[in-house]
Amino acid sequence: MPSTPAAAASAAGEASAANRRGRPGYDQQSVLAIAVDVFNKHGYEATSMGILAENLGITKSAIYHHVPSKGDLLRLALENALGGLEAVLDDARASTGPADEQLEFVLRGTIKVLTERLPFVTLLLRLRGNTEIERDALARRREFDHRVAKLVDAARSEGSLRSDIDPRTTTRLLFGTINSIVEWYKPGGPISPDQLADDVISIMFDGLHSRS
Amino acid sequence: MPSTPAAAASAAGEASAANRRGRPGYDQQSVLAIAVDVFNKHGYEATSMGILAENLGITKSAIYHHVPSKGDLLRLALENALGGLEAVLDDARASTGPADEQLEFVLRGTIKVLTERLPFVTLLLRLRGNTEIERDALARRREFDHRVAKLVDAARSEGSLRSDIDPRTTTRLLFGTINSIVEWYKPGGPISPDQLADDVISIMFDGLHSRS
Repeated sequence: MPSTPAAAASAAGEASAANRRGRPGYDQQSVLAIAVDVFNKHGYEATSMGILAENLGITKSAIYHHVPSKGDLLRLALENALGGLEAVLDDARASTGPADEQLEFVLRGTIKVLTERLPFVTLLLRLRGNTEIERDALARRREFDHRVAKLVDAARSEGSLRSDIDPRTTTRLLFGTINSIVEWYKPGGPISPDQLADDVISIMFDGLHSRS
Repeated sequence: MPSTPAAAASAAGEASAANRRGRPGYDQQSVLAIAVDVFNKHGYEATSMGILAENLGITKSAIYHHVPSKGDLLRLALENALGGLEAVLDDARASTGPADEQLEFVLRGTIKVLTERLPFVTLLLRLRGNTEIERDALARRREFDHRVAKLVDAARSEGSLRSDIDPRTTTRLLFGTINSIVEWYKPGGPISPDQLADDVISIMFDGLHSRS
C-alpha cells in the first residue's frame, strides 16, 4: 500500500537504513501501519511516542530511526489517505463523459480507496484539526468534497440526477453513506470491495425499493 | 427536550431543590445539556468533574447537588437518546401495515430523534464501551439496530425492497446514512428536520437518479 512516490521512496530509503542498522522486521511502512492502528484506538493526541514504542516492541530511539517525530507519522498516514482519494479525481474518467458517470466513477474510486486503505482513511475522518498537520489535511479533504459537490451539481444540471433535493444535502448524504463504511467494513470478509461499491452505487442512485 | 418521564420528574425535583438552595439558572437538565456538550468536545473519559465545573461556572460540590457522579450524567444523557429511539419502535405504526411503511416510519422517527436530541445521540454514537454504563447503552443500541434489521428483512420478504442486495449491507448503509447526519446537521438551520427526513427517505428508497 504505497502512498505518494515521494513517501514510497522515503520509506524504501528508511527501510534499507534500518536494515543496515540491523533492525529487521520493521521498515517505515510497517511502523506507520502499527502507529495508525494505535492512533485510531487511542486517539492521535493521547498517543505518546512511549505508547507507540510499547506497541511496536522497540525503544523510542528506534522509532526515531524510522521517522523524525509523531507528527511525521501523522503526516505520512494522512498523505496515504488523501493521495489515494485525490488520485481518483485526477483520473481522466473523473472529468470526461456524462457527469453522472463521472460521479459514479469517483464514488466507486472513493469506496475502493476507503476499503483498501481503511485505517488511514479512518484516521483522516476522525481528525479534529488541532494541529497544523491536521488542518492542512482537513483543507485537502474539503477540497476533495468540494470537487465531488461540483460533480453532483453538474449531473443535476444535465438532468440525470433528481432536482427536488438540495444538492448540498445530496452531497452530505453521499459522503455520510460512504464514510460510514469505515465503521463496520471488514477487509477480507464476505463482502468484496467491488461488491460493496456495486451495492452502495445501486442504493444511492436507484434506491432500495424494488421496481415492478 | 425531556427524556424519560422518570428523568423529567427527577429533573423537576432537582430543580426545585436547587432553587431552595439559591442556585437559580441551573437545574439537572441544564447541567446535563452542558455536560453532554463537554463530553462530545473532549471525550467522556477525558472530562473530569473539575473540567465540567469550569464549563458550568460552578464548583464541583455544586454539581453534586444536581447529580451524584459523572457516570450518572452519562447514564441520563444516554437514556435521553435511547429512550427517544426506543419510543419510535414502540409506536403502533412501527408494527402495523406493510413492512416497508413500518420501516419508513421508523427511519423518519429515528431522524427526528437524532435532529431533536442531536448532542445526546452524538454521544451515543461515539461510545467506545469502556465502562459498564457504556456497554449497557451499546447493548440497547444493538437491540434497536437488530429490530430495524428485522423490518428490512420483512420488507424484502414482502417484495417491496429489492432483493439483490444483502440485507445486512442494506441495514448498515441505512444506519450509516442516517447516523452521519449528526456530523453536519445544524438544528435551526435552513433544512428543517421534516425536510431532512423527506430527503433521506427519498434518496434511500427511490435513489438519486431522475426518473424519466
